[in-house]
Amino acid sequence: MTSPSATQDRYPYQNEPIWSRSEKALARIAFDAALKRELHEVMQETKQMANQISEPVDLWDLEHYLTQRRKEIDRKYDYRYSQLTQVFGKLLYESRPGEEDLRGLREDKLKSIRSFAKFLAEMDAA
Amino acid sequence: MTSPSATQDRYPYQNEPIWSRSEKALARIAFDAALKRELHEVMQETKQMANQISEPVDLWDLEHYLTQRRKEIDRKYDYRYSQLTQVFGKLLYESRPGEEDLRGLREDKLKSIRSFAKFLAEMDAA
Repeated sequence: MTSPSATQDRYPYQNEPIWSRSEKALARIAFDAALKRELHEVMQETKQMANQISEPVDLWDLEHYLTQRRKEIDRKYDYRYSQLTQVFGKLLYESRPGEEDLRGLREDKLKSIRSFAKFLAEMDAA
Repeated sequence: MTSPSATQDRYPYQNEPIWSRSEKALARIAFDAALKRELHEVMQETKQMANQISEPVDLWDLEHYLTQRRKEIDRKYDYRYSQLTQVFGKLLYESRPGEEDLRGLREDKLKSIRSFAKFLAEMDAA
């Protein structure tokens, strides 16, 4: 017999969705691709900002931009299964990845991810 | 009884050189020119580093470089007359400005400036 507590012992976060092996593989790919794209954007933006430097203050603007982006990316890309729904929700809200990259996740997860993206959009509009 | 602290209360900077009006004008020009040159170097180096960015780690190397340079420049360029001898000593040690930029300062100041530059060179060699 599989009791809830026995399940809980094996998996302490009972309210969190279980990620199947195929979902984990898909999540990893979507996560890595989104991170790679975002870092690529920062690289492009940095090159452009650097090219336009003409005053000392532009240097410290660039420094500030890099610090902010580094912190934001560190916070955003948290690959813990307990966080992934929110991570993908945030990414979806920012249109990275698009929903097509998440195809293959179970519908319950997609629903949570969409729901979190919607919440962020509403927060942003408020 | 005159204790060291009482002396300090009356005139805390008694061992510092007095800067004449013409020396102050000259110091300001040399100071601003050195700062401008150094910032220009950082701008050039930043553009070069940015052009060579090919991996995300290069972004954070650039951020670190900018933070370090900003802090170093903030520390170094301290335009208080109580600090100027050491400031110019450090700049001289780094060959910015050259001694020709300091021509017009009184010999006692040039001697102190050279002496501090020498001290830094010895520290560096140790």
